[in-house]
Amino acid sequence: MNISEHVSLNMDVRGLGQSATLAINDRCRVLAAQGKEVYKLGLGQSPFPVPTQVVEALKQNAHHKEYLPARGLKELRDAVAEFHRRKDGVDASGDQVLIGPGSKELMFILQLVYYGELIVPSPCWVSYVPQARIIGRKVSLIHTCYEDRWQITAESLERNCQKEEDDLRPRILVLNYPGNPDGCTYNESELKDIAEVARKYEIIVLSDEIYGQLNHKGEHISIARFMPDRCIISSGLSKWCGAGGWRLGTFTFSKKLAWLLESMANVASETYTSVSAPIQYASVRAFHGGMEIERYLWHSRRILAILGNECANKLIAAGIRTHLPMGGFYLFIDFSPLRDKLRERGIFDDEELCRKLLDDTGVAILPGSSFGRATNELTARMAYVDFDGALALTASERIPLEAELPADFTKQYCYNVYRAIELMTAWAGQ
Amino acid sequence: MNISEHVSLNMDVRGLGQSATLAINDRCRVLAAQGKEVYKLGLGQSPFPVPTQVVEALKQNAHHKEYLPARGLKELRDAVAEFHRRKDGVDASGDQVLIGPGSKELMFILQLVYYGELIVPSPCWVSYVPQARIIGRKVSLIHTCYEDRWQITAESLERNCQKEEDDLRPRILVLNYPGNPDGCTYNESELKDIAEVARKYEIIVLSDEIYGQLNHKGEHISIARFMPDRCIISSGLSKWCGAGGWRLGTFTFSKKLAWLLESMANVASETYTSVSAPIQYASVRAFHGGMEIERYLWHSRRILAILGNECANKLIAAGIRTHLPMGGFYLFIDFSPLRDKLRERGIFDDEELCRKLLDDTGVAILPGSSFGRATNELTARMAYVDFDGALALTASERIPLEAELPADFTKQYCYNVYRAIELMTAWAGQ
Repeated sequence: MNISEHVSLNMDVRGLGQSATLAINDRCRVLAAQGKEVYKLGLGQSPFPVPTQVVEALKQNAHHKEYLPARGLKELRDAVAEFHRRKDGVDASGDQVLIGPGSKELMFILQLVYYGELIVPSPCWVSYVPQARIIGRKVSLIHTCYEDRWQITAESLERNCQKEEDDLRPRILVLNYPGNPDGCTYNESELKDIAEVARKYEIIVLSDEIYGQLNHKGEHISIARFMPDRCIISSGLSKWCGAGGWRLGTFTFSKKLAWLLESMANVASETYTSVSAPIQYASVRAFHGGMEIERYLWHSRRILAILGNECANKLIAAGIRTHLPMGGFYLFIDFSPLRDKLRERGIFDDEELCRKLLDDTGVAILPGSSFGRATNELTARMAYVDFDGALALTASERIPLEAELPADFTKQYCYNVYRAIELMTAWAGQ
Repeated sequence: MNISEHVSLNMDVRGLGQSATLAINDRCRVLAAQGKEVYKLGLGQSPFPVPTQVVEALKQNAHHKEYLPARGLKELRDAVAEFHRRKDGVDASGDQVLIGPGSKELMFILQLVYYGELIVPSPCWVSYVPQARIIGRKVSLIHTCYEDRWQITAESLERNCQKEEDDLRPRILVLNYPGNPDGCTYNESELKDIAEVARKYEIIVLSDEIYGQLNHKGEHISIARFMPDRCIISSGLSKWCGAGGWRLGTFTFSKKLAWLLESMANVASETYTSVSAPIQYASVRAFHGGMEIERYLWHSRRILAILGNECANKLIAAGIRTHLPMGGFYLFIDFSPLRDKLRERGIFDDEELCRKLLDDTGVAILPGSSFGRATNELTARMAYVDFDGALALTASERIPLEAELPADFTKQYCYNVYRAIELMTAWAGQ
């Protein structure tokens, strides 16, 4: 007798692939190494560099070697709370903040700690559902549609809650806005209505606001304002601060969720221990903000807004459905109006669509099925991030604040995205 | 009807406290804030600074912002493999290495991924067992004793395996040497004998060698040499490189365990994503080694050896049992010879012992029950690390390599540890 190797893998992780967004990135690397021109609209990585002040802060704090508290450096937790007070008008203190090595890890520990069901609008970010699977939690998807701007409504949330006889079953609703993969966001009245239903069913809202500061108008509104008792704001440095690779995420809990924070910190102390000390010290600088950081954000938004809108408009003109983006750096695009033509070319699902697009044009985007959609819907996510953000920021800074960016700005400074859209629309029109 | 908050906590994490070593650190901070002199022999944090060359490397790489591959930066994985080839005579390539935010996190993911039983010698490091509990895995403890230097033997391992009718049940043996909490290590023939039993039962050995480079004689031997097919070497920057707070751990797998590495990397991509990029780039410098790093290690060992031996000898003279240390920076001390006297003072267990010692003298050590021992055995772990390592290193560097450190070196450069031992022995003799 001999143990087969795979016998001893946990059932819940068998067959688990690499995270879809990371996998496409690996594939692009392979193609690029073969000398092929690749347009990387797959991985959602900010095109902008980490602000100079924050990089400098890391250099100044490089010597810190001590284990920090599991909840995070007090100075940083205070800075995060102050950030949410200042930016979101939310009442919070440092005691309500938990620092983790990325908000993804914090979401995983939340699911590990909380014994409940996860309600996830679809399309949704790639990792919520695999995390639930690894831990063995139940996920309840609310499928949204193009017509609703890929958003849930108070009504669809209520219908979902009423499906179960057990009205007050423990639930977490994940709400991500500005949205990945859709680039849309909720307005104040929509958030109020959703909050009302969440309060009624005593749902905890995990409000994933990692793109909050990238609302293109700088007008992000947090649902925490309307959910003072059962809300967690998830944020971090990865998107607005261009520091995805630094791995720093934050959870800010309602006061009444102190028990959940405590339990998560205990699991943290038995797993990742605490977040890298130099990174935490440097992050204090980022969350403190100030004029330099505001300027960086303002120009980031100006560039993303013009680029996202231009991409959307060109795709729409080519017969592909999408919404004009309101934040972040994604478009969720819908090829279903071209279904018959694509079928003639042997394309019946979104994976084939993305594979063929990549092979024919070098443009990498991710199939909608990676985000919880049916594969025959022919949706996909594109991230308009394949350009040199440092160069684009410098160019934008030279153009008066009150002026619009010139018409050729994207062609000049975001050429790969510009070219990718040309290639995609030509490909779609074949 | 109203949901009680705690109803929805996962049973496996309810009542889970903070990691014991971190909790004592928090308590010391409170006492110190009250103005009390505290001798911090609780938390096992290296007293030495991160080597200058490695801190410089972090500064030079502070701008890296990109998400790195889930397995880790290729350059770093190659450097880790080369490190183990050079230091341990183990055959390994970068493909066999996985980088994580601390080896503790990697051990957690290993338990999550591998469906098997964990065999843990006791006393053992504080987090193995709580991790198994969080995930719901079975742990089989092998209790060792003072007379065996707190080590397992091939025979005790075989007895443990024979307890179950299922000879080839999936098992992981955790072997930590030089040991936390005991400071002892295995010699070549002991490792060979254990490896033979492990091979017979097809056990995977998780060889926790995080203190390997702190073998006081620089003569660490890895069991991987005798377990070429089913071994994982766990290491990282936390101990030998003084960078606990940086959070970088490494697993190096036998070639035949590629399936396990792959599955762990997939879970990594859904949880912590990848380790902080600037930290990974800087760590390449640490693992590359070179003369500067060797000198740092040589002096670290010289100081730890003399200090550990002096502490042990004084404790033994005061009637407390312990072994002369062979590596790392811990002594596992046994107050049982003083049992009757302690009982007269109202001390019946190790927790009361540590609490009373801290209150009476300001010396913080951790009860043996935090390491899997029965609380009435009256054991405890002390970490001889409460001194300024930078100062001590500079002093050691001024003393010729072939000379012994002078008799008053520890009093002069490791005063808090020196004084703590005085206080402890006086307290024990009351």
